[in-house]
Amino acid sequence: MRNLEVIAFDADDTLWRTEHLFQEIQRRLSEILDRYAPHDQVQDRFHKMEMDNIKLFGYGAKGFTLSMIETAIEISRGRIGATDIHEIIMMGKGLLDAPLDLIDGCAQVLEHLRGDYRLFLITKGDVLDQRNKIEKSGLEDLFERTVVVQEKDPDSYRAVFLEHRIDPQLMAMVGNSMRSDVLPVLELGGAAIYIPYHITAHFEIVEQEIQHPRFHQLQSISQLPDLLKLG
Amino acid sequence: MRNLEVIAFDADDTLWRTEHLFQEIQRRLSEILDRYAPHDQVQDRFHKMEMDNIKLFGYGAKGFTLSMIETAIEISRGRIGATDIHEIIMMGKGLLDAPLDLIDGCAQVLEHLRGDYRLFLITKGDVLDQRNKIEKSGLEDLFERTVVVQEKDPDSYRAVFLEHRIDPQLMAMVGNSMRSDVLPVLELGGAAIYIPYHITAHFEIVEQEIQHPRFHQLQSISQLPDLLKLG
Repeated sequence: MRNLEVIAFDADDTLWRTEHLFQEIQRRLSEILDRYAPHDQVQDRFHKMEMDNIKLFGYGAKGFTLSMIETAIEISRGRIGATDIHEIIMMGKGLLDAPLDLIDGCAQVLEHLRGDYRLFLITKGDVLDQRNKIEKSGLEDLFERTVVVQEKDPDSYRAVFLEHRIDPQLMAMVGNSMRSDVLPVLELGGAAIYIPYHITAHFEIVEQEIQHPRFHQLQSISQLPDLLKLG
Repeated sequence: MRNLEVIAFDADDTLWRTEHLFQEIQRRLSEILDRYAPHDQVQDRFHKMEMDNIKLFGYGAKGFTLSMIETAIEISRGRIGATDIHEIIMMGKGLLDAPLDLIDGCAQVLEHLRGDYRLFLITKGDVLDQRNKIEKSGLEDLFERTVVVQEKDPDSYRAVFLEHRIDPQLMAMVGNSMRSDVLPVLELGGAAIYIPYHITAHFEIVEQEIQHPRFHQLQSISQLPDLLKLG
């Protein structure tokens, strides 16, 4: 790859696994609402609710939980019982309290790269949730800086680059989301290294094939050092 | 007052009113739960729930809403109906959507001071909520920087001071909370200008009389320029 000074990493489902927890809970929501509507209708309604609420709630476990409760009330037409709603709240709290499940090999890769590059973590979401996860990860000291943004779009990347004196021409973003990690960084002149995770949140899905000289795809983060060595 | 370079302002109930919205909603929660328990018991249980949940949820409207729902389910022993829970969610959304109600005179005071001092806004809470309020306020450009922290304790102030090269000996913090704006700043060697608001969130209440050479108290933010002029 071309000369790079900065490697920035997404966090959720790039350095540690989170999406399976959200998906398990959504499956359970469908079960709870089984007698009111078929599973796929529950999921569709929930996805729409979550999207509608993101502007107000932002990303993260608390907004996710409130959107589930709202969906449950709506789908059941107000017949859902308090015990079921309590279970939904407890699942949401469980998300915030869950132990962190690091992706295999990511600590070693960061250790390996930190001598040669300025390393950043750039994640989006609820700041308290994300700060707690960064702390639990034990990875914080490997980064020059860990940054939590509300949305990963060209404007927010531009602001981070400016604040931390990152030249987009000399940076690569590593992540699992086309929408949040790849497309906005390519737009700003950076390189993007896409490492898909086996499940993707519905709001991150982009139906697009990428052909771009600064776009790279890997199967796992362990392949990153070799990719960076290639000229 | 002694020589100052930096004036930092709290936001909620210092630059704009918010606490009355939270208190109105809590009053309505007591009404909804009227048939299950007396009002003061509802309030006590809710305050305890909110404190227990703050570590997981942080400060802000989403956690506040989830704590109300949890309180309602508990106080009613699972008998609360979905319609009532829906009303609680809608009140929480209303908080996030509420127009911003600026404290009289604060924009003029900031305009007046910005030529002579570096001005900061330091607020705690959910970053998305607080950023939205800062944007709605129209005051952002009057500050060198607006900072949202998770908790206002000596450690978090120290981090802000370090990052923005603020010498605590040359700064004053203006705010309505003894616990969050006054005590930690005095501890770090800064000056504190306390402007009490007529209502205070239960978790901010400190039963303490302050006698300190760097402590000042005002009745309104409009008195701030005169206080600063005093030698």
